[in-house]
Amino acid sequence: MSAHTSSHIRWEGGADGALLLLDQTALPTREEELRCETVEDVWGAIKRLSVRGAPAIGIAAGYGVVIGARKAADADGVAAALAEAADYLATSRPTAVNLFWALDRMRKLELSGDREAQLGQLLDCAKAIHDEDRQMCHAIGEHGAELVPTLPDGPAGILTHCNAGGLATAELGTALAVIVKAHSQGKPVAVYADETRPLLQGARLTTWELMKAGVDTTLICDNMAAQVMKEGRIDMVVVGSDRIAANGDAANKIGTYGVALLAKAHGIPFYVAAPSSTFDLSLTSGEDIPIEERGSDEIVAGYYRDRMAPEGCKTYSPAFDVTPAELISAIVTEKGVLRAPYTEAIAAMIGGA
Amino acid sequence: MSAHTSSHIRWEGGADGALLLLDQTALPTREEELRCETVEDVWGAIKRLSVRGAPAIGIAAGYGVVIGARKAADADGVAAALAEAADYLATSRPTAVNLFWALDRMRKLELSGDREAQLGQLLDCAKAIHDEDRQMCHAIGEHGAELVPTLPDGPAGILTHCNAGGLATAELGTALAVIVKAHSQGKPVAVYADETRPLLQGARLTTWELMKAGVDTTLICDNMAAQVMKEGRIDMVVVGSDRIAANGDAANKIGTYGVALLAKAHGIPFYVAAPSSTFDLSLTSGEDIPIEERGSDEIVAGYYRDRMAPEGCKTYSPAFDVTPAELISAIVTEKGVLRAPYTEAIAAMIGGA
Repeated sequence: MSAHTSSHIRWEGGADGALLLLDQTALPTREEELRCETVEDVWGAIKRLSVRGAPAIGIAAGYGVVIGARKAADADGVAAALAEAADYLATSRPTAVNLFWALDRMRKLELSGDREAQLGQLLDCAKAIHDEDRQMCHAIGEHGAELVPTLPDGPAGILTHCNAGGLATAELGTALAVIVKAHSQGKPVAVYADETRPLLQGARLTTWELMKAGVDTTLICDNMAAQVMKEGRIDMVVVGSDRIAANGDAANKIGTYGVALLAKAHGIPFYVAAPSSTFDLSLTSGEDIPIEERGSDEIVAGYYRDRMAPEGCKTYSPAFDVTPAELISAIVTEKGVLRAPYTEAIAAMIGGA
Repeated sequence: MSAHTSSHIRWEGGADGALLLLDQTALPTREEELRCETVEDVWGAIKRLSVRGAPAIGIAAGYGVVIGARKAADADGVAAALAEAADYLATSRPTAVNLFWALDRMRKLELSGDREAQLGQLLDCAKAIHDEDRQMCHAIGEHGAELVPTLPDGPAGILTHCNAGGLATAELGTALAVIVKAHSQGKPVAVYADETRPLLQGARLTTWELMKAGVDTTLICDNMAAQVMKEGRIDMVVVGSDRIAANGDAANKIGTYGVALLAKAHGIPFYVAAPSSTFDLSLTSGEDIPIEERGSDEIVAGYYRDRMAPEGCKTYSPAFDVTPAELISAIVTEKGVLRAPYTEAIAAMIGGA
């Protein structure tokens, strides 16, 4: 894979080019590429989860700002067009901080020269965000692979929730980077992938990625995780995160908090893997992380042939939850493995960045 | 509702009649009745969950034995035909003990008279199983409604998993009997129904029943239960059971054990509601309860329009799990509310039966 391109996030051409996204809503049955040429295209792709996963959202948003800034008629208009695009893209999804992190980075860029020069500088920044994420994922994989035990009597059983894989990042992933690196180092692993309702990122994306990587992977429904743990099949849990507060509380796909409680009840270590762009030191704890609530269609109809619940049935669909730091055994970042007390460990990592 | 008939389980005619089942796999979009005239029809209806729920399976199996016994050419052949039908029906599903309880009860019947007289005695017994279940459900509802708190600041939040409603029994249900009785007594309740993957009994059946009963009901995905508890929306959990061991360990739909752990972590009482036919004193603990494992189609395809996971994806699909007695706050039966220590409480209840 060459720099500033991924199999599922590609920029084509110069500053007047287009963002090409593998439409993740069509996987695993169809591999369709989505062409984004307007900032509305990018916003829509993020909103409906055609591109999803906290780091991947940040990457797409960076390119989205380039597209938005092109509305400027001349050099004097670039800053305003950029700001307008960034403000708009910030309304797409509320929980993943990487979105805001990438938009801020684009906003803070010191632009100079004519319109074309400024757009070129913005594109370079978007590509840098893309490239750096790839490097961070590989570093996360290296650090996290050390947490995967080598067992005398069989593979290490690893449970993961949602998709924190290559599709959620520039490549390789965060939680799945840990698994794939361990696998490539020759450590035997057996992965249990939660299907992750309502949008089934685990069933559709995690299995697809891990099977391509040759990793032994078994799909389960979310509500089977406790039983699989009780049967002794799980030696560790590893998940990604959309935002980590200063104290280590970690927001991630709905269901993660429950998995963490179940892991604790069974004495199983629970790891979070995320790049440093996921940490939000402006929040002292997870209580302050905004949780996106999604529409009822994803629950009552979703991908189903028949309607899954009666007409008029009320639903409640928080898209994320927050896992308290006390349930997290370690947080794997590209800079190393953080352990409790997290406030100090996180401050030291971010401060030393 | 007249005796020995339910809206979803009906016997039509005399001993040469037919069993009519509301096909629960078609709900909530279609209300279709399934006519069973052979023992194979009944076996298939149980196997593919057209009739499901531990008590309802027992009721259907009782009628199935009547149908099977009709193969006898004369009075001398009834006992053998009955035994053959019971042995066959026992292979349909392994976990719910009510199936075996009902078959045993039919087997142990002392038959007398000619072929027609014996078939009439069998039909009377099947109808008695049906009638008694209705009475038990109402008694369970009365006992369990006392556990529903009346709160000063809003409705009592009640979480349930799978469907332990009228459809799972003769009528009214077990867990849902508790809810519906409390509601009809004027206690404000707000129910959260786990959708219950893979076959979505919560989404399709529990919401359908509770909405018909006028109960405020909100559908959530299974993996949202922990978050809903953390948000303070749940004051109690109540579920049904497929088999309860002598020590109180309770098998129920996969995911129940996880809900019990989550309830414990949040200090929420976790109640099991079941008729005494669900208790299996031949098992000292839940470790000995056989857990049915179901096919991968229910996970990877199921009701979905598109395939939900890649071709060749491995799955694991235990249909039930066992909740240790230590996680159960009380077991509601038609004879009253049992509390720990369960071995003594259960023995006293069954012994006093």
